[in-house]
Amino acid sequence: MADASTPQQAQALSPAALDQLFRTARTHNELGGEVGDETLRELYDLMKWGPTSANMSPARLVFVKSAEAKTKLGPALDEGNYAKTMAAPVTVIVGFDEDFHEKLPYLFPHTDAKSWFNGPRENRSPAAFRNGSLQGAYLILAARALGLDCGPMSGFDNAKVDEAFFAGTTIKSNFLVNLGHGDPAKLFARSPRLPFDEAARIL
Amino acid sequence: MADASTPQQAQALSPAALDQLFRTARTHNELGGEVGDETLRELYDLMKWGPTSANMSPARLVFVKSAEAKTKLGPALDEGNYAKTMAAPVTVIVGFDEDFHEKLPYLFPHTDAKSWFNGPRENRSPAAFRNGSLQGAYLILAARALGLDCGPMSGFDNAKVDEAFFAGTTIKSNFLVNLGHGDPAKLFARSPRLPFDEAARIL
Repeated sequence: MADASTPQQAQALSPAALDQLFRTARTHNELGGEVGDETLRELYDLMKWGPTSANMSPARLVFVKSAEAKTKLGPALDEGNYAKTMAAPVTVIVGFDEDFHEKLPYLFPHTDAKSWFNGPRENRSPAAFRNGSLQGAYLILAARALGLDCGPMSGFDNAKVDEAFFAGTTIKSNFLVNLGHGDPAKLFARSPRLPFDEAARIL
Repeated sequence: MADASTPQQAQALSPAALDQLFRTARTHNELGGEVGDETLRELYDLMKWGPTSANMSPARLVFVKSAEAKTKLGPALDEGNYAKTMAAPVTVIVGFDEDFHEKLPYLFPHTDAKSWFNGPRENRSPAAFRNGSLQGAYLILAARALGLDCGPMSGFDNAKVDEAFFAGTTIKSNFLVNLGHGDPAKLFARSPRLPFDEAARIL
């Protein structure tokens, strides 16, 4: 695929790296091991570089790690997600700031991008949700890139999480990600994915 | 970080791989080179493995490549996105199927997950939007992992794209991604990201 007209063209990552990120990576229910604060900072320092619209970077993260914080999170969880989340070394609350535009003068200094999003909150909520979700996916893949395993979840009461962790702010919870180290022996068989022609078209 | 209690624990990818995915990867406005159909299938065969809630995999992709398809897309683009999109080897329309639940008997065969999402469409739309956005981020990082450069965009008229490409279906457009090979010499200085303490907390 090299082409003299495109200098410094990147090559594909190694097959082992593609496996670790995508092909053999799995969602884990049981996560153990240790995840230090330095690893969480490394994780942020990778995922923050993922692209968002106008660099709006609306994601706001809470790394729920202490027993006290886990206790605060517990009542919001669906029953099936409770035990595994209490046992995980860290649970990340991936949230997004609906008033992300307040930081655009810093994040997108070339022009007055804040003015594009002033006005009623519901007009900027889809952008916050879309781009905050992208950043949640960057977090999952950055964690895998660092050798961590993930257990992302939507099975919880968003309003309860918002009340417990984001009261008095403009931040809303989006989804949760348990982080740690999984044991491949404890995985179930993998579910199928859609074949190309059911999910994609080339026109 | 090795720990005898966690067998086969993954290591972090190489610094060069972390750079290619996150740290030095950049959004490109000018994209050239060739992107063959086989590369688009490779791309799908990576991104499809990214996790979604109940494996719902709601993303639906249109790879806009031919002059005819580009002409159909053109009128929906914001003025500032027109020329670069017409010039890019491929533009991906990342959409999501609001009736994704119809495929859950295949995608999540262990239980009747479809029944969780039956009923009015607006009740499952947030899940489609959230998980379809995650898959859009997987697409971006999978493209980078394959050595491609990306130019994601939200600056277009979703209703026009839906009318041109998804009329008569339950698929909605989410965002666009130009794909190709960028020239690092043509990049502007990088915009800053939020420091850890402005975007995250460890509790």
